[in-house]
Amino acid sequence: MSVPPDTLVPWPHVADLMGGWPDALTVEIYDGTGPAPADVSEVRFYVLPYAKGSATFEPLGRMPKLEAVQSLSAGVDNLLPHVPPGVTLCNGRGLHDASVAEHVLGLILAAQRELPRWARDQDAQRWQPHFTRSLAGSRVLLLGYGSIAVAIEARLLPFETEIRRVASRARPAESVHGVDELPDLLPYADIVVSTLPLTAETTGLLDARLLAALPDDALVVNVGRGGTIDTAALLAETRSGRLRAALDVMDPEPPPAGHPLWSTPNVLITPHVGGGSATFYPRAERLIAEQLRRFAAGEPLLNQVPRPA
Amino acid sequence: MSVPPDTLVPWPHVADLMGGWPDALTVEIYDGTGPAPADVSEVRFYVLPYAKGSATFEPLGRMPKLEAVQSLSAGVDNLLPHVPPGVTLCNGRGLHDASVAEHVLGLILAAQRELPRWARDQDAQRWQPHFTRSLAGSRVLLLGYGSIAVAIEARLLPFETEIRRVASRARPAESVHGVDELPDLLPYADIVVSTLPLTAETTGLLDARLLAALPDDALVVNVGRGGTIDTAALLAETRSGRLRAALDVMDPEPPPAGHPLWSTPNVLITPHVGGGSATFYPRAERLIAEQLRRFAAGEPLLNQVPRPA
Repeated sequence: MSVPPDTLVPWPHVADLMGGWPDALTVEIYDGTGPAPADVSEVRFYVLPYAKGSATFEPLGRMPKLEAVQSLSAGVDNLLPHVPPGVTLCNGRGLHDASVAEHVLGLILAAQRELPRWARDQDAQRWQPHFTRSLAGSRVLLLGYGSIAVAIEARLLPFETEIRRVASRARPAESVHGVDELPDLLPYADIVVSTLPLTAETTGLLDARLLAALPDDALVVNVGRGGTIDTAALLAETRSGRLRAALDVMDPEPPPAGHPLWSTPNVLITPHVGGGSATFYPRAERLIAEQLRRFAAGEPLLNQVPRPA
Repeated sequence: MSVPPDTLVPWPHVADLMGGWPDALTVEIYDGTGPAPADVSEVRFYVLPYAKGSATFEPLGRMPKLEAVQSLSAGVDNLLPHVPPGVTLCNGRGLHDASVAEHVLGLILAAQRELPRWARDQDAQRWQPHFTRSLAGSRVLLLGYGSIAVAIEARLLPFETEIRRVASRARPAESVHGVDELPDLLPYADIVVSTLPLTAETTGLLDARLLAALPDDALVVNVGRGGTIDTAALLAETRSGRLRAALDVMDPEPPPAGHPLWSTPNVLITPHVGGGSATFYPRAERLIAEQLRRFAAGEPLLNQVPRPA
């Protein structure tokens, strides 16, 4: 292509969903695996490749005509400082609900039913059945109550669980408690699932004092952002055997070699794969197609992230 | 105790549920971990210790006054030949529903979301995220549609799955297909979950021909009885990479050292722990208490297994 594109998108098959690219747009594919196109000076709409790391933010500094950025992540804390003022930022709200909710159930069942133990026993050709915890009868506290938490709740309910909802601010009409009530709620939580985004208010929220309020043997699950939990405090409580943790996000992420997150007993980690499953793609492609259609037609984009003026 | 007991039960705290043992019964505890009481000649009602192996069947041959046996398992195929004619046999129907259903969801999510891989990566301090399969959008065939399958179905539905029900005989009013329809149904199953008991009709039911009817990459989950699947045929299909399996029961069980069930790629095994979780005990104790009350009062026992006259 000799003329710089005015739209960058990650996947060619979005065009199939649209019956071809809109006439008004010059579209180029940048899937984030190689270097970005050399000349992006004409780009007005940039759909970031998904989960290809912060290298994909770099072209943002070379797009003087940029009008809108579409992220396919729900959390945009890492991206935010790279988006110039006045540019519309849209997130991937909703795309990950089913995938992350599945992963949360997988993490909870792995912890309660000791699935990693059975995998290691299989590797060792060891047959040593024993009784495990169950999920049935557990009291689960959902920390953060957005669309991902709603999807988690729907999947948890048939497991005979009792659920409490907590968000940054109380929403009594939805039976959602505020984080200020955590000291009273945590003593009754067998399992805490955090989907909190990282903001000034949530950074380090689950600190030593709040973790101490949990009952013995409670399980802390994090699929929000690692920085919302005080890692040192969590490791102290898991190392002692008092608490357990199952983390798809953590701080630092990834943990450097030898970091105790890798090896502390009762800590299960997965490499930030909650959103990364097959069910994501069709949803993401439908969103991109709809956003391109709206952009070409001059209509307001979906999923706009409120930004300081 | 100088007089032989007329009732053997596995757990002393059942008495607490009953406000003490019934006056009409002399109860002795046999939990299955040591040798059975030497003199069981007066025993009329024997509640088998749970999951302590076939050694707990031995006392049955020394109980001339035996009237009833309570198993805490759902499947009684192993026990059946040891129960004398005329003795009432009761099974543990319903006690395991929640526990087994949880384990099935754990096995499915472990296979779809690669939980064993992440556990091994954690052991190796390896951070290599990649996209996985999802459960969302999967077509699941429930093979066997008793109380455990109903519990599995309730937990699967919120995961955006499409479910087909199959049992030994079609029950059109419940949308249950018969096993004779399997050749037409299997090509549309991404996941098959078998809860079938072992009977003359189900032995070796999932043979090479039926397994070949499954689509590529399908997952076969078994929490019923190992003998319902042709192990050699399943291993051939998993070894080639065409199918995947997650088995809590298998044939032989446990597999001897070096058996390919331990090490075939795409085969995940757990050591028959589906029913063995914390949620089982309170349910089992309530059943035993109710059965003792009925036995002492001369009322019909619950969960009687139909037997040839």
